[in-house]
Formats: sequence, C-alpha cells, structure tokens
Amino acid sequence: MNRPIGIFDSGVGGLTVVKEVMRQLPQESIVYFGDTARVPYGSKSKDTVTKFSSQIIKFLLEQNVKSIIIACNTVNSNCISELRAMFPKINIVGVVDAGVKMASTVTVNGRIGVIGTQATIDSNRYENLLRINNSNFEVYSKACPLFVPLVEDGWINHLVTRLITSHYLHDLIQEDIDTLILGCTHYPMLKEVIQEIVGDIMLINPAIEVARSIGEILENMDLKSHTNATYSFYVSDQANRMKQTAEMFLGCPIGKVTTVEIEKCYC
Amino acid sequence: MNRPIGIFDSGVGGLTVVKEVMRQLPQESIVYFGDTARVPYGSKSKDTVTKFSSQIIKFLLEQNVKSIIIACNTVNSNCISELRAMFPKINIVGVVDAGVKMASTVTVNGRIGVIGTQATIDSNRYENLLRINNSNFEVYSKACPLFVPLVEDGWINHLVTRLITSHYLHDLIQEDIDTLILGCTHYPMLKEVIQEIVGDIMLINPAIEVARSIGEILENMDLKSHTNATYSFYVSDQANRMKQTAEMFLGCPIGKVTTVEIEKCYC
Repeated sequence: MNRPIGIFDSGVGGLTVVKEVMRQLPQESIVYFGDTARVPYGSKSKDTVTKFSSQIIKFLLEQNVKSIIIACNTVNSNCISELRAMFPKINIVGVVDAGVKMASTVTVNGRIGVIGTQATIDSNRYENLLRINNSNFEVYSKACPLFVPLVEDGWINHLVTRLITSHYLHDLIQEDIDTLILGCTHYPMLKEVIQEIVGDIMLINPAIEVARSIGEILENMDLKSHTNATYSFYVSDQANRMKQTAEMFLGCPIGKVTTVEIEKCYC
Repeated sequence: MNRPIGIFDSGVGGLTVVKEVMRQLPQESIVYFGDTARVPYGSKSKDTVTKFSSQIIKFLLEQNVKSIIIACNTVNSNCISELRAMFPKINIVGVVDAGVKMASTVTVNGRIGVIGTQATIDSNRYENLLRINNSNFEVYSKACPLFVPLVEDGWINHLVTRLITSHYLHDLIQEDIDTLILGCTHYPMLKEVIQEIVGDIMLINPAIEVARSIGEILENMDLKSHTNATYSFYVSDQANRMKQTAEMFLGCPIGKVTTVEIEKCYC
C-alpha cells in the first residue's frame, strides 16, 4: 500500500513531525502542506481555521494520501472533530491529542508543564484535555512567544536561546513538574537547550507520539508501505523560504517545493 | 479645526508613530486603527494590501479625520499612490517616505544602513527610494526578524536584546555607514540598545519625521487643532492585547480599545 501519508500545518513547524515520521517509518512516503500564505492560524476564528483545514485536506486527498496527520496545534485544538465528520473515509490524527496521551502516561507525580505559543496557552486546550484524562493532574502553562522566531531565524544553540529559555521556564521548574509538553511544533528544534535548562524533567515531543500512532494505525489497517519513500512539499506562498527552512529542520536537501493556490482551487 | 488625525498600521507597531505625534503635536487628537486580525501584511499581495488599506481609510474617514498617516511600512511601500488616487480629498503621508527623506538629508558620507523585517528588506523599497534621491548613495540592508517579537514580548532593555542587536548590526557597522534607518515601526522601542551598539551612527526614526511632516501640512492648510487632544484606539481583533501593548509602547493608560469588524463593514 504505497500511498503517501499527508501531513499539514499552518506553516513550517509541522516539519518536526515530518522529521519524526521519516525516522520512525522510513518506508512511508509523505506529502506535506504548509499554509504559509495564511499563517498564523492562532489568531483566527474557529470557522476560518476549519475552512482553511478542509481546503488543505481536499488537496491532500487529491494527492491520494492514505492517512492524515494534523501537525498544527491550532487546527487540532479547534476542529479535529469537525474535520473527521467532514472526511469520514480517511484516518485523521492530531499532534495535541498525541502529546496529551503521552504526557498522561509518563508523569509520575501528576504535575505537568505545557509550553506553547500565546494562542495555544490562552486556549487552555492541553490543560483541559489533561484534566479529562485525570482530574488529579496539576497543569502549569507558560507561553514562550520568542521560541518560534528564534527557531525560524536559526538561533538553535546560542547563548541568547539559553538565556531566554531559562527565563521562560523558571516558574515551571519551581512548580516541581516532572513532565513538560513541547506544545508547539517548532519547539523540538530547541530540545537540547530546553533539556539542559530543565534537568531531569521528561520532555514530551508530541511529534514522536503522533508518528508512533500513525505507524500503529497503518499496521492495523494493513496500509503500510514496503518500497522506497518519496517526499513532496507544498506551500501556499514563499516556496523558496520553505525550502531553506525545511532543509534546516530536516537536516537534508528536499528538492523542489511547489506553490499551490489553495484558496482558489479547493474552496 | 479640531478633527483628529487618522493613523493606521497592520498591527501595534504604528503606536511608535502615535507616540511621536502626541509628543510633537500635543493638541492634535488621534484615531488609531491596528489591523490585528489580518496582521502581518508583509507576506500578502499588493492587491490584498491595497484592499485592506482602503477599508481602513473608509473607516477613518467616517471618524472625520482631517489627515492620514500610514504607519505601516508594507502599505506605504506597496500602494500609497493607489490610495492617494482612491481618496483624493484627504492628505495621506507615509512613514517610509518620511524616513528616506530624513536619511537623505542627514547622511554625510552617503553610506546608509537600513534595518527592517524580512519582507521590508526583501522589497528593496528603502534602497530604491534612497537611490532615486541620490544615485551615489551606498545602501546596506539587514533583516532583523527577532526585533518585533522581542519588543512585543517586552525584552526592551535586556542582555539578550543587546546580544541579538550586536549580532544583527555587526556587518552594517563594518560597512562604515554614518546613518541607520529604523525601517520598522517597532524598532524605535529598541533605540537605546541600538544606539549603544552602533556608537555615533545617526539613527533615523521615521516616526519623528512623519510627525513633523504632518505638523507642517496642518499648519500650511490651516487645519491645526487648538483644544485638548483625545485619543481613540480601534483594532480588528484582540482588543485587550492591544490595550496592554499600547500602554507599554506609549507609557501611559489609554482607556478602552474598540473592536471593529473592518472586513464586513467597509468592503
């Protein structure tokens, strides 16, 4: 079953999910879509985010994908149920759900930290989902607005990044959390620095769990690929910029990035 | 002539222009509009930016403004001529034109630096306008993508900001520039740190020149106000966030911020 997995995000952050699927499932082909013309989704209404996401899913289905990963925290938080109802024939898994599941499993003292963009933290989505899993969990959240621009501007391992990380995480560490969810797809790019600052707190990278989860689904449904993987990258704007960033995120050349007029063609 | 001046931007950055108009023209009332629902403009097409801007100008005209300042680099760079043609009865001045004029006047050695967002620097707008003024000017540009998030997250005077500034400006300083244009409305918030790093290079804050220029226009057209000023703030989304940021930018309380459905009401 050599059809690709579809992965999408509002921008480039979902590439950390691509990286993890490449690592765990090296025979699976991937079609990635980043909605770079309409990023960020965090400040947009639920209706708008649902409409944009359904356009992207239509595009991915046209690429004959066998399963879809929502690599965007905002889409997963706002409308994964609506999208599943709109596209009942395809499996859709989300990065937030995966992170929550993993954190709930690994925490010992039930004190969990969540870091993300301002929009993700303000939505309380992680907090609510963790409490649904276990009402005794104590959840501590912190927005880290500089992490995305730091990653996108290439300050991955720099004194500046360590100082900012230390400032952002100070209060969470004081709360005696034993588990910290990296609640934004960019943040795994900073995991070495974050781990250095938080010591032996367990970092949860939802990309790892979502890749594991899609692997299981494909196995169970007998949809696994057994050939050489191919990778295709699509954006709605600024293909050259995506190519550069993708090669930084993935650590390898990715070939051509294609621009799709998603708004006109899939409304 | 106690009608207000209209000032608009894609987001909060234009508040540095508000601050300068308040300082230079303390009797002038201001209506500010920040298009926080549709920010950033930098990645959008010229047609889209023109449409959004004309919606905002219609709103400002309804508030009975006597003159308009475009406090957004992208709008000024893309479509100030089109907007002037669409609204011939109102004076429209722009922050980029003002910055270029001031830098052209103050440079002695003709070596001018420009810093701005990636979109502004990629557009070459400042460079082209400076060269139209004087084809012998040497212009050196540098995108500083972390400055806007640093300002918005409140890292105004911090070791981190000094380290990042020093990194960004290193090459420009080597080029022996004598003048540096702060080509993004957020950057005047960092002017102390920037000045510390660049030494005796002259910093150009286009907000100062645009406020001076609007003062002259009002004087010449006999449109100056002679009463106590009032200030009104409007946004297309996230009024609370704007209130917070505006009070940080302006250093004083600003009262209520009102949300306007700009897309629905002024199309």
